[in-house]
This record gives sequence, C-alpha cells and structure tokens, in this order.
Amino acid sequence: MGSFKGHALPGSFFLVAGIWWAGKYSLWYATRRNKHIGSTRLTSRASQRRMEIFESSVMIFFSVVGMLAEQFLADGPKLQLYDFTEKHWEDLMNWQHATMYLFFGLAGTVSLITHTTDATPLALDRLMLALAFFNEGFLFFYHLHDRSMLDVHVHQLLLYAVFGEALVAFMEVFHRGNILLELLRCTLTILQGSWFWEIGFVLYPPRGPEWDLKDHSNVMFITMCYSWHLAFAMLIVSVLYWRVNCAVRSRLKRTPPMEMGLLKTGERDAESEDEVL
Amino acid sequence: MGSFKGHALPGSFFLVAGIWWAGKYSLWYATRRNKHIGSTRLTSRASQRRMEIFESSVMIFFSVVGMLAEQFLADGPKLQLYDFTEKHWEDLMNWQHATMYLFFGLAGTVSLITHTTDATPLALDRLMLALAFFNEGFLFFYHLHDRSMLDVHVHQLLLYAVFGEALVAFMEVFHRGNILLELLRCTLTILQGSWFWEIGFVLYPPRGPEWDLKDHSNVMFITMCYSWHLAFAMLIVSVLYWRVNCAVRSRLKRTPPMEMGLLKTGERDAESEDEVL
Amino acid sequence: MGSFKGHALPGSFFLVAGIWWAGKYSLWYATRRNKHIGSTRLTSRASQRRMEIFESSVMIFFSVVGMLAEQFLADGPKLQLYDFTEKHWEDLMNWQHATMYLFFGLAGTVSLITHTTDATPLALDRLMLALAFFNEGFLFFYHLHDRSMLDVHVHQLLLYAVFGEALVAFMEVFHRGNILLELLRCTLTILQGSWFWEIGFVLYPPRGPEWDLKDHSNVMFITMCYSWHLAFAMLIVSVLYWRVNCAVRSRLKRTPPMEMGLLKTGERDAESEDEVL
Amino acid sequence: MGSFKGHALPGSFFLVAGIWWAGKYSLWYATRRNKHIGSTRLTSRASQRRMEIFESSVMIFFSVVGMLAEQFLADGPKLQLYDFTEKHWEDLMNWQHATMYLFFGLAGTVSLITHTTDATPLALDRLMLALAFFNEGFLFFYHLHDRSMLDVHVHQLLLYAVFGEALVAFMEVFHRGNILLELLRCTLTILQGSWFWEIGFVLYPPRGPEWDLKDHSNVMFITMCYSWHLAFAMLIVSVLYWRVNCAVRSRLKRTPPMEMGLLKTGERDAESEDEVL
Repeated sequence: MGSFKGHALPGSFFLVAGIWWAGKYSLWYATRRNKHIGSTRLTSRASQRRMEIFESSVMIFFSVVGMLAEQFLADGPKLQLYDFTEKHWEDLMNWQHATMYLFFGLAGTVSLITHTTDATPLALDRLMLALAFFNEGFLFFYHLHDRSMLDVHVHQLLLYAVFGEALVAFMEVFHRGNILLELLRCTLTILQGSWFWEIGFVLYPPRGPEWDLKDHSNVMFITMCYSWHLAFAMLIVSVLYWRVNCAVRSRLKRTPPMEMGLLKTGERDAESEDEVL
Repeated sequence: MGSFKGHALPGSFFLVAGIWWAGKYSLWYATRRNKHIGSTRLTSRASQRRMEIFESSVMIFFSVVGMLAEQFLADGPKLQLYDFTEKHWEDLMNWQHATMYLFFGLAGTVSLITHTTDATPLALDRLMLALAFFNEGFLFFYHLHDRSMLDVHVHQLLLYAVFGEALVAFMEVFHRGNILLELLRCTLTILQGSWFWEIGFVLYPPRGPEWDLKDHSNVMFITMCYSWHLAFAMLIVSVLYWRVNCAVRSRLKRTPPMEMGLLKTGERDAESEDEVL
Repeated sequence: MGSFKGHALPGSFFLVAGIWWAGKYSLWYATRRNKHIGSTRLTSRASQRRMEIFESSVMIFFSVVGMLAEQFLADGPKLQLYDFTEKHWEDLMNWQHATMYLFFGLAGTVSLITHTTDATPLALDRLMLALAFFNEGFLFFYHLHDRSMLDVHVHQLLLYAVFGEALVAFMEVFHRGNILLELLRCTLTILQGSWFWEIGFVLYPPRGPEWDLKDHSNVMFITMCYSWHLAFAMLIVSVLYWRVNCAVRSRLKRTPPMEMGLLKTGERDAESEDEVL
Repeated sequence: MGSFKGHALPGSFFLVAGIWWAGKYSLWYATRRNKHIGSTRLTSRASQRRMEIFESSVMIFFSVVGMLAEQFLADGPKLQLYDFTEKHWEDLMNWQHATMYLFFGLAGTVSLITHTTDATPLALDRLMLALAFFNEGFLFFYHLHDRSMLDVHVHQLLLYAVFGEALVAFMEVFHRGNILLELLRCTLTILQGSWFWEIGFVLYPPRGPEWDLKDHSNVMFITMCYSWHLAFAMLIVSVLYWRVNCAVRSRLKRTPPMEMGLLKTGERDAESEDEVL
C-alpha cells in the first residue's frame, strides 16, 4: 500500500488507540487516587473488565479488516504468495503489512482471553502487545532496502516510536499499573499515528509539489519535525489527562458517596482485588 | 557441518527442549496456582527436583554427543586443531560448533550440581544458560564473514532468538519463577529450533530448485517468514500451556484431596520452601 | 549558532545546573541521613518545595531566553521556517537548537505543575527531563552530516553525556531519591557543560592557531580529554558533596534541636510524608 | 606500551584481581550462608572492613605505579603532552593508558574513603568501579584506528569483558551482595586478564613465527579462543568457590561455636548490621 491512504489508515488507527488509552488510563488512575472519596462508583472492577473486553474486540476487528484489506484490495496478492509461472514473490509488501496486523490480532485475542477467563497470567496482554510492536518494528527495519534517502529516514524515525512502545509495554509486564509508563505508551502511540500521516504527506503529497527525496536539508527538517510531533503528542496526552482528572473530581464532588454502604460484600472484595494488580 | 542435516539436528534439539520446557513450566505454574485445591499432590518438590536432574542429564548427554559428532564424523577435525604441514587451521567451523555444545554442556553440569547439592545459589543454572546462549550468539555473530547475502541474513535473524533467550534467561536470575519470562524463553527456543530447519531448507534444499542467494525479494520473504515462525512458536506454547492447565484441573477435580492430612510435616516444609524460590 | 559563544552559552547553563543540582541533592541527602539529630530544621518539606519551584521557574526562563536568542539574534530565522522565494529551509540549525530548548522548557513547566499542584504523579518531572535530554541527543545525532572528522567526533562524544543523562533520569522514575543516580546525573550535566566549552575552544578557537580537523592524533587526544573532563566533573561533585555534608553537620552540632517539641503536628506529617517519596 | 610486556603486566593485574575477588566474595557468601553454625567467627564485620581497606590501598598503589610506568619508562612522554617544536602530541598511547589507570586509582580512593569513613553511600565503590571499567572500554574503543584486522579484532573482543564488567558493577549498585553478579564480575575480570596475555602472544609473539594479521581464518580461531578463555575463567572461579566453601565448612565443623556467648553486644550489633547491606 505505498500510497497516501496506505499510511493515513494505520495512522488513524494508532491515533485513535493512543487517545483511547490516554483516556482509559487517566480515568483509572484518577479512580485509584480518589478512592477515599468513593471514586470506585465511577469505574468498578466489572466496568474495567468490560472496557478491556471491548478494547480487545475492537483490536481484533481492525486487525482482521487490515489483513483483509491488504490481501484483497485493488493491488493485493489475494492470498497468493508465489507466482510459479513468473517465478517471483507476489506483493511482499502487502504480505508484510498483513503479518504486522496478524500480530496485533494475536495480541487482541490473548487480551480477550486474559480478561474473560482467568486461565492466563494477567500481564500476558502487555507481553503480547510488546511482541506485536516489536514485530512491527522488526519488519519495518528490514523493509527499507533500496529506497531513497528521505524515504529511509522517515521510516527509521518511525522505529523510535515503535521500538519505544515495545520496550515500554515490556516494562509494564513488571511494573503494571504505573501511570507514567502507561501515559508514555499513549504518547508514543499518538506519535506513531501522527507520524504515519506525516510520512503520507511527505512521500505521496496529495497536492502541492513533490519533496526532493535526496536533499539533506529536508532530512534535517524532517528530524526536527519528529520532535515537534512528539511535543504535540505529549500535549494531547496532557490535555486528556487533565480533562479526565477534572471531570472525575467535579463529578465526585457533585454526588457525595452516600450509597457506599449499599455495596454488596462480594463487589467490595472484587474491587480491593483490583489494587493488587 | 554445512549441510541440511547439520542444521536439522540442532533444530530438533531446540524444538524438543522448547516443548519440554513449555510443558514443565506450565505444569509447575498450574500446580502453584491450584495449591489451595491440593495440587501439590501432582508435583511435589521432590518430583520437581527429579525433573531438573533428568533434564540436566539429557542436556549433558546431547552436548557430549554434539561435540563428538562435530569432531569425529566424516568431515570432522578429529581433535586436530592446526595442520602444521600445510599451515592452516583445521575445520574451524566444526571447532566453533563444538565450542557452542561445550557451553551447553557446562550449563547442564552446573544445573545438575545446583539441583543435586545445595552448594551453589539456585539461580546459577539460569546464569549459565544465559552464558551458553550468549556464547552461541557470539560465535554465530563472527561466523558470517564472506558469505552470500541471504546466507548472512538467515543467520542474523537467528541471532534475535539466541540473544533474546540469553537476555530472558539473565532476567530470570532476578525474576525466577516468572511464568511469562519462562514461556517467552520456551517460545524463543522453539523459534530457534524451527528456524534451524528453515535455514537447512533454504541453504541446502533437499529437493527442488536452489534458492537465489542474492535476490533481495528472497530476503524480504525470509524476514516475513521469521515472523510466521514466531507466531507458530507462540501457538505451540499456547496450546501446550492450555492442555497442561486443563489436564491439571480435571485431574484435581476427579480425585479430591482427601489424603491431605496424611502428609508428613517434613514434606510440607519442603513444599512451602518451594514458594520462596 | 556555529560560534564560540554559541557553545559557551549552553555550556555555562549546564555547568550552573550541574553545580546547583549537586548542592541540592547533597543537602537533601545530608538532611535525610541526619534526621535523628534534628536536621529537618534545615530543609523542611516546604523549603524543598520552594527550591523545586524556583528551579523550575529558572529552567523555564532560560529555555525561553534560549529560544528567543536562537530565533531573533543576528543570524536567526526570525520565526520564518521556509523561504518560498528561494525554496530552501531557513536556518535549520537555529530551529533545531530552539526545539531542544523547547523540550527543556516543557520539562520545566511540567516540573512546576508537579510541585505546585498535586494533579500529576511526582516522578513525571524526571520522565520529562529524560525526554528533554533524549530529544537533545536525538537532534544532535542527526546533526552531524557532512562535517569534518574532528567536528563529528567532539559532537559524538557529547552524546555519551546526553544519552547517559537521559538514561539516568529515566531510571530515577523508578528509583527516586537514590543519591548515587542523582550525583551521577549532576556529574554528567557538568561534563556536558564543560564539554560544550571544549567544543567551542576546539572548533572556534578564540585565539591561537586553528586545529587540524582531519588529523587523527587530534581525535585521539580529544577522546582522552573527554575522560579528563569526566574526572574533573567527578571531582567538582565530590567537593560539593563533601562541603555540604560538613556544613550540615557542623551547623547541627552548633544548634541543638531544642525547638523540636514546638513543631506543629501538621508540619510533622508533611515531613514524614517526605520519606515516602 | 605496544609490546608483549605492556600487555602481560595489566593482564597479570586483572588475573590477580579476579582471583582475589573470587576468593573474597566466596568467603563472605559462605559466611553469610553458614551463619546459623557460627560462621561469623571466621569473618567479622571488622575483618571484612580491613579486607576492603587493604584491597583499596593495593588498587591505589598499582594504579599509581601504572601511571608512573606509562609516563617515565623508556618510551614514556615524561609528563610532556605536546611537543611545541615539532607540533605533535607526545605518545598519546601512553597518556591514554595512564588515564585508564587514573580512573582505577580514583575508584580505589573512593572505595578507601567509603570503607574508612561513613560519609559516602556504600554503593559508591561499585559505581566508581563501573565508571573505571566504562572509561577503560571507552578509551580502547577509540583506540583502534588504522590497525590491521586481527589487531582490531582482539581488542574488540576485549571490550566484551570490559563493558560486561562495567554493566555488572553498575547492576551491583542496585543488587549489592548478589553472589551471582559478584562471581560474574570475577569471571569477566579473569577473562580480561588472560585475554591481555593472549593479545600479547598474538601481536608480539615472544618466540615462534609472527601471526598473519590479515588472514580471516585467524580471526575465526581467535573468536573461538575467546570462548575458551571464558570457559577457563569460569572454571577457575568455580574451583575457587568450591575450595573456599569446603574450607569454611570443615573449619566450622572442627571448632564448634562454644565461644559464642562471649561476644560483646557491640560486636553483635555490628554484625547484624552487616545483613542489611
């Protein structure tokens, strides 16, 4: 999918994922911090679980859509891997992209199993996410042969975000629930998403003149641009964190926790279990 | 041993090792998790120790077999290192492979000592395993001089699994008994095993046409192939984990823990000691 | 700002920052260690907070000054990014430097918010500092295209200090208050500062002969010089640590903690909270 | 000191250091493990401190000797850094080696201060050791310009041990007293020492024919040789650990801990403090 759309689509997925995660983790963190004024009314353990299941399902859905799109859209290989008549591989780019989606699909599936049954250790969802990001970076890394300088450079910069996310997700296996790691992952996801859009605009400008892919000052500008995207991603995550935090507090102030005593014992246990995670 | 067999043999070793480990760690994890319904009947501390001793012995045995095969089979150097008449080193490849086996043999020996006596700290077996994998990767890394592009590439990909295993085993020194690290190591071991088979098929195809070792699209296909092997290894480990988990639960349900009270105090202490590890 | 002043200025900033930090962390450590003889009189929690707020404000101030200087001084781009008439980027160097200052400004802002409100997790100031240093190193790393050997080399050596600081600050997210990490960060900051001066002297010698930028023995000398700067930075930090430690002890000996009983309960709680950090 | 002796001397230092450390840490570990049968008679806290002080003093002594030797022996620069008449740097190699010794001298000094006063945090000795090893590796890394292939290769292999030691010493800052990290550091030190001898034999063979420094099969042999040195270092450390362990146990069995009750309370406290480290 070497086209503007082929970069804008995954970019949008990652943007949405990053924003969703930033909201989710901010909400849960605000809940944990305001527990003493009854914040568990807002997100109980059961509702957290429902959010995780919803998220996993959406992840699986988009991964399958992504795989199908790479295979069956206009220039896709339609599940044919090798052209025996002309003796060459069919559309390896599309196959590689489909493989990336496959790993995110696996991560979603495992996350779904983890949060619906208790057969697997909880941290497995983060490990699978780390592997999915690592796999994405791994395939991109060997993807860049024989392209022009700027093309290689914009994809290399992408790898900082991708491997950064893999590393942060792997660290979350050991430091689960650390809000800073979670927000850092959100930031890198948004960075990845907006950078996909940037790649689309640079390599396949929808209008306006083509970029000179061999000019070194373009490389320098693009590098700086990456820093700005990072600052922009940090800004978005900060604003989301701030808004969610304010919303939780104002909501808690308006409705005093009078129904506290009505909680069934079973539900309480389930919530205190939450802190152990 | 630059031949199909020379890659299929170590590949089979690693496949078997990965599957054995996946079963072992799944069993122990299921035992730990179901302790409250008496799962310690299934694997007591003594039986765990027997498994470790058995495993170490097998590891030593195959390492010795591997070293002897590299030295004395058809094209081996037969313990001669330098040919003084013609002034060149004898079969350095075989010597290097024998050195790799040597470190796995050392790891097996240390593991045997660790689990039969209490002279050494327990985590030493993981440290030696990490060193054995690191040594394997180290020798492969400097092994690739002057080969064709695809040959270098398939061996470089192998290094991801090998150094990954070294890193995971080293982390287990500090996080012993972490099921996720253990399963990750199993996955990487199976990946390494199946990739050895893949290397054999690519470089020395037993039938069918030769691969073009300089075609870049082959490199791209092989890279993607590595991701598929990883997904396949993850699948195998998941299925094993699942089967073992189900087996433990169904077995525990069938035979209620009535003999619980009959445990001697000494045995109990030994088992509670187990949790400390 | 390819000039002597352009390197001396940031160098001075980092030198001052390193010395300030070394004093601050030494004072706090001495306070923590001598708590049993009433050292909390010297730095209460409130005064620590004031120091942090002062530090953040200074950091923001100098970042803004730096950005304005890069933009509006003699050869600056004056906020113009692209020259549409001549179709080239305007002064990308200045823009990149301004971007570096921007991230330090963001780190200062977040630190200010962290220490004036309690909306954010405390460790966020270190994470932002790590990102600011990482961003500085990232931009320098892609900054070195097409320069002479020695020029590239002196900037590459700078990266050791910069990425080292990023790593140490990131580790402080998890090990906050570890005096060794804090002093190591001070040392690397002073090293960075004095190295900026060294770069200025080597590339733009204010008097005396020019350096031969292609002579390899100059590269070897400069490398060793970097080690000396490190030793020098270690010396400064040691002396500061020592002086502060002595001052705290002698001051505590002179004034016995008689007013201990007069502390209000509220203030005490605030201080014991301090240990949790 | 590009000569056989110039490599044999530091090699011997590191060999002795590695063996001394292996003995020391094995003894302390055996003492800690056999505390319940009165092993603290063998190494009290006071005797441990004396050993540390002795070790630091020896380290400082040899560092000073090394620096003086590099400066004033036959071909040394005699403290002259730049030859202004002929406009070139004087013996940069010797200056670099002297700088390496300088950092080990600093590490020794700091270790001496740490163990004689209580002004500094205990883990500072490990941090300084890590910096000394890092500095050694850093200088070697930029030392290899314009040499022949095998010369570069043997020095690069050395870096594995040097940077490995730096990393392990840095980890000990956080995991002080972890016997596995300590023994790993001993192993790498012995590896470094024996590899210096190997370098001497390869580059300046005292008798016998010269090595062909451009033959790739020599590179392959040397790589494997490094693995053998590692195995050899592991063997030495194992034997030392084993002997010390046996000696401690047999000594404890011979002399039952009857004088236990005679310990003064003060000494006991000092020893129990030991466990906290």
